[in-house]
Amino acid sequence: MRAKRRDALRAMVRAQDMDALLVTDLTNIGYLTGFTGSNAALLVSAAGDDASLLCTDSRYAIQARDEAPDLKLRIDKACDTALLANATARRIGFEEHVVTVARHRVLTGAAAPGTALVPANGWVEKLREVKDAGEIAMLRRACQVADAALAEFLAAGGLRPGRTERAAALDLDERMRALGSEDVSFPTILAAGENSAIPHHRPTGREMRLGDLVKIDFGAVADGYHSDMTRMFVLGPPAGWQLEVHALVAAAQQAGRDAVCAGATASAVDAAARDVIVAAGHGEHFGHGLGHGVGLQVHEAPWFAPSSTGIMASDMTVTVEPGVYLPGRGGVRIEDSGVVGADGFEPLTLSPRDLLAL
Amino acid sequence: MRAKRRDALRAMVRAQDMDALLVTDLTNIGYLTGFTGSNAALLVSAAGDDASLLCTDSRYAIQARDEAPDLKLRIDKACDTALLANATARRIGFEEHVVTVARHRVLTGAAAPGTALVPANGWVEKLREVKDAGEIAMLRRACQVADAALAEFLAAGGLRPGRTERAAALDLDERMRALGSEDVSFPTILAAGENSAIPHHRPTGREMRLGDLVKIDFGAVADGYHSDMTRMFVLGPPAGWQLEVHALVAAAQQAGRDAVCAGATASAVDAAARDVIVAAGHGEHFGHGLGHGVGLQVHEAPWFAPSSTGIMASDMTVTVEPGVYLPGRGGVRIEDSGVVGADGFEPLTLSPRDLLAL
Repeated sequence: MRAKRRDALRAMVRAQDMDALLVTDLTNIGYLTGFTGSNAALLVSAAGDDASLLCTDSRYAIQARDEAPDLKLRIDKACDTALLANATARRIGFEEHVVTVARHRVLTGAAAPGTALVPANGWVEKLREVKDAGEIAMLRRACQVADAALAEFLAAGGLRPGRTERAAALDLDERMRALGSEDVSFPTILAAGENSAIPHHRPTGREMRLGDLVKIDFGAVADGYHSDMTRMFVLGPPAGWQLEVHALVAAAQQAGRDAVCAGATASAVDAAARDVIVAAGHGEHFGHGLGHGVGLQVHEAPWFAPSSTGIMASDMTVTVEPGVYLPGRGGVRIEDSGVVGADGFEPLTLSPRDLLAL
Repeated sequence: MRAKRRDALRAMVRAQDMDALLVTDLTNIGYLTGFTGSNAALLVSAAGDDASLLCTDSRYAIQARDEAPDLKLRIDKACDTALLANATARRIGFEEHVVTVARHRVLTGAAAPGTALVPANGWVEKLREVKDAGEIAMLRRACQVADAALAEFLAAGGLRPGRTERAAALDLDERMRALGSEDVSFPTILAAGENSAIPHHRPTGREMRLGDLVKIDFGAVADGYHSDMTRMFVLGPPAGWQLEVHALVAAAQQAGRDAVCAGATASAVDAAARDVIVAAGHGEHFGHGLGHGVGLQVHEAPWFAPSSTGIMASDMTVTVEPGVYLPGRGGVRIEDSGVVGADGFEPLTLSPRDLLAL
């Protein structure tokens, strides 16, 4: 499977008339090799795996042999320069969206004479956009854990007046971990009352009160794959404006989900949901993109925004998450992770999407 | 306090004949402004805070006004280019160790005519090396939480035959969070038996067994400040080789701690500990540096390694963590976080350093 990914990357390398690609992004290295340590570089040679090399430092020597047994291994602390200095390739691509200006200078100095470093941007990320069956299975599992943790959390009275945002978020996080999540997908957003108007709020000591809208945006991780879901709640009977904003966002989210299918442009998917919100006069209260790819990173390509240029393909996994935020009052976001198919969006997060009154 | 930090940075900007520094590292921005969102840029003008600007996107508008009320705020999704395009400065520094090659091209294109972008490397990180009293208090609190969580964990039988590494690590993590840690400082390393020979092992489903060495490397977070500590345990009576390796590493760690003081060179501190291990014939089994700075990041400047060139100053906070790793058998590391003083190393992590037999 990983050898197949390297083959696909090799085809891109050859198509750009390069002899090799130096991969330095750790998530990309994990995707291509299985290695999960915190220091590595990978040289993918156009000539094949026999001419390719993974490099890490001595802390990870045992782990690297275990995780990436099918690749030649070099042990050196300065992974990227070690691979470059010994490469005989003429044209080597580097990840220009990853390598810093300072590191690029070091790489240039370390490259063997006659080797040219050529910018390569987002190649592995492009491969990662379309998931294989094993990846989708892992995403499905991550979403199931998040769904189960939320159900448990709600059944146990996780949201109740007097409890702080922070205590509630911690409770939900622990339930995800107890259900097998390797980590939380990102710091859980649990925002009550006026805080729900802050799209990326961090839980505080604010206590939840009767009448509060509560927004929870969270996810679980399974074998490195991240889930991402947002649901809305209200403590006690919902107010009219809360129902109204929720209904609007729900309609926008459904429109977005309905627009997702292989062949659709990313900007059209964004527009399908955004138009609903704009038509209701709330365009200025929806300041972010409609969604993003989700996988080894919780936010990854492709992106849904008005300016996006991409086209959806089958087996991309993406989120659809419109929001309307009324500063000082409250905000609503509804988000699902799902798979792009020829027939549309198959949701992987399955918790009820209603405004749940508690 | 943060205004004082910006003043100190401004002095560096002026000393390098620059008109401003564009800060794009989020940890550095947090240090200089208090802002904790995930998208921002900061232009620190040599002319003062009145001419300086913080930029973030609409998701964080409320939060930015709240967290950084003393700075002018611009709302724009493309933070770095938004600040550059409107800057009238002649020479603007950029963080060349943070900005990627691809982003640098975008910045160059966005800069106002007549503005030169000049590399600046590690300036804010340099300021961050020396902590103020408030920072040390937060580090002390993080270390106290870690100490307390470990004591609770051990008292509750956290390490016992039949329990998996993963379950034990999760238990310790939850105790830290319950005691007020904002997060874990980094993914907890809990390695049993032969896995303890892997310096940065990730907990697995391996069950602990009688006779296992167990290595735990973990930390808590208080107000963004990270603790870092490693302790060693053995299930049942220790074997001779386990006692021997532990005694060696303990002696090396003490030698390293004793060598820490304001004015010492970082390489001399590394050597003080390393010499003990080399003299015992285990130099090849200690493949990493002796320690690192610890603060807003768990690993930050300064660094203790044979090749380090820095000099210790009072109120730096650092770790001292030698290790000896015997592949296939087991490994020992002992690590403390502490403060550099004129009189030496003041440890902040205070759990007993013995090889605790359970």
